[in-house]
Amino acid sequence: MDYSKKSISLHKKRKGKIGTLVKVPLKNKTDLALAYTPGVAAVCLAIKDRPERTWELTNRANTVAIVTDGTAILGLGDIGAEAGMPVMEGKAAIFKVFADVDAAPLCIATTDTEEIIKFCKNIQPSFAGINLEDISAPRCFEILERLEKELSIPVFHDDQDGTAIVVLAALINACRVTGKVLGELKVVVNGAGAAGIAVSRLLMEEGAKDVLLLDSLGTIYEGRKNLNKYKEIIAKKTNKGKIAGGLKEAMIGADVFIGLSKGNLVSREMVKSMRPDPIIFALANPTPEIMPYDAYAAGASIVGTGRSDFPNQINNALVFPGIFRGLFDGRVKMVTVKMKLKAAEALAYSLKPKKDKILPLVTEKKVVKIIAKAISGK
Amino acid sequence: MDYSKKSISLHKKRKGKIGTLVKVPLKNKTDLALAYTPGVAAVCLAIKDRPERTWELTNRANTVAIVTDGTAILGLGDIGAEAGMPVMEGKAAIFKVFADVDAAPLCIATTDTEEIIKFCKNIQPSFAGINLEDISAPRCFEILERLEKELSIPVFHDDQDGTAIVVLAALINACRVTGKVLGELKVVVNGAGAAGIAVSRLLMEEGAKDVLLLDSLGTIYEGRKNLNKYKEIIAKKTNKGKIAGGLKEAMIGADVFIGLSKGNLVSREMVKSMRPDPIIFALANPTPEIMPYDAYAAGASIVGTGRSDFPNQINNALVFPGIFRGLFDGRVKMVTVKMKLKAAEALAYSLKPKKDKILPLVTEKKVVKIIAKAISGK
Repeated sequence: MDYSKKSISLHKKRKGKIGTLVKVPLKNKTDLALAYTPGVAAVCLAIKDRPERTWELTNRANTVAIVTDGTAILGLGDIGAEAGMPVMEGKAAIFKVFADVDAAPLCIATTDTEEIIKFCKNIQPSFAGINLEDISAPRCFEILERLEKELSIPVFHDDQDGTAIVVLAALINACRVTGKVLGELKVVVNGAGAAGIAVSRLLMEEGAKDVLLLDSLGTIYEGRKNLNKYKEIIAKKTNKGKIAGGLKEAMIGADVFIGLSKGNLVSREMVKSMRPDPIIFALANPTPEIMPYDAYAAGASIVGTGRSDFPNQINNALVFPGIFRGLFDGRVKMVTVKMKLKAAEALAYSLKPKKDKILPLVTEKKVVKIIAKAISGK
Repeated sequence: MDYSKKSISLHKKRKGKIGTLVKVPLKNKTDLALAYTPGVAAVCLAIKDRPERTWELTNRANTVAIVTDGTAILGLGDIGAEAGMPVMEGKAAIFKVFADVDAAPLCIATTDTEEIIKFCKNIQPSFAGINLEDISAPRCFEILERLEKELSIPVFHDDQDGTAIVVLAALINACRVTGKVLGELKVVVNGAGAAGIAVSRLLMEEGAKDVLLLDSLGTIYEGRKNLNKYKEIIAKKTNKGKIAGGLKEAMIGADVFIGLSKGNLVSREMVKSMRPDPIIFALANPTPEIMPYDAYAAGASIVGTGRSDFPNQINNALVFPGIFRGLFDGRVKMVTVKMKLKAAEALAYSLKPKKDKILPLVTEKKVVKIIAKAISGK
């Protein structure tokens, strides 16, 4: 199917994907007097007197702000705030349909770290949580860290932690299917942006001991040139053999390849240089690092991509709706590492994995409940 | 009816008044592939290549941001961003139900003029217009003026221009009913905040020659102490007799009283000191400057309030939905004085006014169409 053409046609016909849902009747003077003036004055004053009543008297408790600066949209890069809106509206629709979370997509006209932080602090009174989205590294790390400290509502950077959770869940199940053991794997993570670094961190939290991370300049190791602050930190914990070189060198003898980079970077030869029955997660969108049939032809045992038109879709849409459902249901203030591990494990053990189905589908209803419970404890 | 209690109960039951409406199906893999990845990438790139396509491929073209800092909520004053949300959700619901305009209420945690301007500029890529709401004077004047210059989408401060349009429409019709002539009236406007100054300006644009404006310190005239920049400017055009004193002195011999101030400031005696058959618009919310029965008892010919539970409600809810419908339908970049006058006149002449019905009701469907046409020219 030509998704591109059909998708443009759908967006044009519907004029986007979301709008405003009204939850009260507004048919007559009495309706207006209750929803608006004069009745609404009492609601305002009730919140003025006890600000925590904002959670029960407005829709705030169920509403997330999706904030992006348009610098890292899907796999498309820095395409600008306006061009990010179709993705953000898509996320808002997914939030509503799968998790009954209301969402406001806010594509903003600044890429300045301090301004983005200020922006999120300014919108805090209107929302129960903030979902940072498609903000490029390394700014996204500082923005998330600062907001976790400076906001009183939870903040979640989907490209970091959403991706990390879904990749960990996929890897847990790939191990269950293949009989491999996480702590013994050599894992190559290609791409040291928001997702690559967060995935590497979470895999190590779960017990992975041999992770090798690469950016566009090659393998990352302690002391290498051109490392930003976040790459320097992770360099201390990864690539202990200080393997230098590019992806070709890194792949030799690896058990797992996780691509969070660009399309067509992995060749059949590279897959053949891995240990037997390698696991390939080629997650670049829309074009994977290697197409599934090439990977299988070169001996891969399990292949996953970010796309919905191949088996084994490994997409953070499996995670973010449940994360916010859980945050809101439990009035949780912050997503901890423990919660992330619990969410990944719960997602993995929600099914008996097979080679061509290591994760549930985004459309399976249980998914949101499982993730939400891991976050809220409820 | 006890609106306060019933309104709180309604808000609690529904948990606010608005949420997210989803306009596309998300039932299966194909739905997801079209609304989200991989199909959405083509939509993003289409906008990246031609940013104006944001108007046809997303919901932006139909979406307004309602921005407040919580400093002048209804007649309640500076009650804070959180406490402003019930009013903003109410506006969003009215936008959707009466004008099919989608809206995002954004109650923000700053009262700094520059920060509010910056905020509005930052959200510009996500919206087709900005409705400033309940931001106190004099900051609201500078914010509106600056944004009218610095944004490429339209901005409208409802408390200023929405109120001015509806009050002018009401006064045109009060004149039609009483046989008075606008250009010959002595009009007292009590309250020199956002609404008072904007109402005075627009009445003079329509032809009123004798307007007397008061703030909490008394009548405003050129050279008086304690005038901000905006009061100084309007002092040059109003109160030509330089009447000093308070409301009592101002009311003597007036034809019209327009209250945009506080409850219970006008006595029967003051109304008796006016010219015969005075017109009283006591618009303070929720308690008017004088209750209708007191005004009538003192000889008023026509009385209007801001409330929906008395006849002659003069409320900007009659105006703002149609304004944005018109701005969006006509892709209008700025609301001009001419448009405001045209909107007020169209609203007035949409009915044959009577003493107890000088304006249509907010719930009458024709209202939005009439205002929208005045703005869009369509």
